[in-house]
Amino acid sequence: MRGVVLHAAGDVRVEEREDPTIVEPTDAIIRIAATCICGSDLWPYRGIEQVHDAVMGHEYVGVVEEIGAEVRTVQRGDFVVGSFWASDNTCEICEAGYQSFCVHRVLMGTIGTQATKARIPLADGTLVATPGQPDADQIPSLMAASDVLGTGWFAAVAAEVGPGKTVAVVGDGAVGLLGVLAAKQLGAERIIVSSRHADRQALAREFGATEIVEERGDGFVAKVKQLTGGLGAHSTIEAVGTQEAMDQAIAATRPGGHLGFVGVSHDLRITGDTLFLCGVSIHGGPAPVRRFLPELIRLIWDRRIDPGRVFDLTLPLEQAAEGYRAMDERRAVKVLLTV
Amino acid sequence: MRGVVLHAAGDVRVEEREDPTIVEPTDAIIRIAATCICGSDLWPYRGIEQVHDAVMGHEYVGVVEEIGAEVRTVQRGDFVVGSFWASDNTCEICEAGYQSFCVHRVLMGTIGTQATKARIPLADGTLVATPGQPDADQIPSLMAASDVLGTGWFAAVAAEVGPGKTVAVVGDGAVGLLGVLAAKQLGAERIIVSSRHADRQALAREFGATEIVEERGDGFVAKVKQLTGGLGAHSTIEAVGTQEAMDQAIAATRPGGHLGFVGVSHDLRITGDTLFLCGVSIHGGPAPVRRFLPELIRLIWDRRIDPGRVFDLTLPLEQAAEGYRAMDERRAVKVLLTV
Repeated sequence: MRGVVLHAAGDVRVEEREDPTIVEPTDAIIRIAATCICGSDLWPYRGIEQVHDAVMGHEYVGVVEEIGAEVRTVQRGDFVVGSFWASDNTCEICEAGYQSFCVHRVLMGTIGTQATKARIPLADGTLVATPGQPDADQIPSLMAASDVLGTGWFAAVAAEVGPGKTVAVVGDGAVGLLGVLAAKQLGAERIIVSSRHADRQALAREFGATEIVEERGDGFVAKVKQLTGGLGAHSTIEAVGTQEAMDQAIAATRPGGHLGFVGVSHDLRITGDTLFLCGVSIHGGPAPVRRFLPELIRLIWDRRIDPGRVFDLTLPLEQAAEGYRAMDERRAVKVLLTV
Repeated sequence: MRGVVLHAAGDVRVEEREDPTIVEPTDAIIRIAATCICGSDLWPYRGIEQVHDAVMGHEYVGVVEEIGAEVRTVQRGDFVVGSFWASDNTCEICEAGYQSFCVHRVLMGTIGTQATKARIPLADGTLVATPGQPDADQIPSLMAASDVLGTGWFAAVAAEVGPGKTVAVVGDGAVGLLGVLAAKQLGAERIIVSSRHADRQALAREFGATEIVEERGDGFVAKVKQLTGGLGAHSTIEAVGTQEAMDQAIAATRPGGHLGFVGVSHDLRITGDTLFLCGVSIHGGPAPVRRFLPELIRLIWDRRIDPGRVFDLTLPLEQAAEGYRAMDERRAVKVLLTV
């Protein structure tokens, strides 16, 4: 099969790789219909995380080709969506809705789904089949459900977004934008988004943003306070992962409010003083996307949401290197790779 | 009137201070029946927080002597309990249950309730009257409600303690011990407490602890994991405020679990990696004790809880200096000062 390998920082190649096979009786093999490039893939691409000859990719939708002897909930020919963590969906942690911390979890990035096929561990727990074969125009949205939509949705849930609430969103990447969509679906009254890019602002508005703030840092915080009688947002979504974004997100949230963070944290910290004095509930990390997949697939299937709009560049898998360049140079928000 | 003044680190004196008077029409003056020394009073006492000639104390129960023209909910002669933050109890933040962040809040430590009398700002919002005059033996428990009980209770609520849950408690000071009592009242199935002191262990068991762990740090975490099938506690209460305690509390909590922290944070931090990878909801800070006062007073009044047991040394106000010494030298967990 064909698959992406990151040989070293900046060196992305699509190469012949060995076809996956059933290893455990709980595995499935899928033929990938679409995959994509994640913001987190840029960390090794930029050399911030060390990497050598690594398979890449953890987002995927596709058709089941083969199942292990113990797989019961999906069968050959099913169109399926899975998350970036394979999970058994039966352990106590999964049952509590934290499949990204499943006691048997497997990180799909170690399998590498930027490829024509992939082995999916714990297929019964990991994969959710769509009600039938999707239309071609639904594939980008189903693809988004695999990570960015599920992650934005988790951020909104962690931030306890709900009816009547004012939500602040820090970050206008794919996850931040889909946090806006999630906040809208979850009933937020007002959604304030930090963005300086006209195209992302437009998409944020389309997804439900009611206010766009171009200022960052203290300027953003001041604007959120001004819009909320000096109090701050009830719910804040942090979808960047930098110190500035985290500080801004905490400061924009009112005491008693909730911060949902999903930006992969790099070199940031929260001091005891900030933590003690903010009065905010802080929750996030790797999203348990599997918790939300049935609901997200239903919304997409019924064409009630169109999260695939975050893909602003679509390329064939063979041109993955150009996809990485486009995201690295910020020419694209999110790149879909068709297989 | 008489009142405590901390002239410099280690130099506690009880002196003549000017009688309080009504300043705002929303004020009340109370004659203090009992006050106490807080673990947080030891920070300036030890010179870790700089202080000169500061009035001390923020915990109090007593009898209303005088009310301002706008005070409606308490009257002369009422026995009242208040929290360490005066709050209006009507602003949007108070209505959400975060009176410790009231937009008009006043820190009672700046007024200094280790005294025979005190001015209570925002009396309608701050003070809760008991159903009648308490028996003498109920005063320590009502006193505890003013801070340590309310703080331990908030920690348990922030940690989402509830029926069927396993709770870990880091810290066997008055707040940690009352966190145990709160967890028991809130229906916890199992309460694991970190303590090395026989007297505190005994009180923890009396309040509802089911397991005592003498190991700290990794040893404590390993023991909690061992008791929870390797997963960690559902709910953890952090009642110390040091880096070691916070790290221990996070590590002892399962992904998807909740950490309620109320130890006043000094020189600690949570790194982005820890935050991102733990999967724990983190909430705490200065407790909105006022939220819980009506319920706590009712439980004490009905003699269903006896939080006053945490006071293991009672002294007259005039001997406050000895009280500070006893707490500083760990000869006492918590000192009650009678007036």
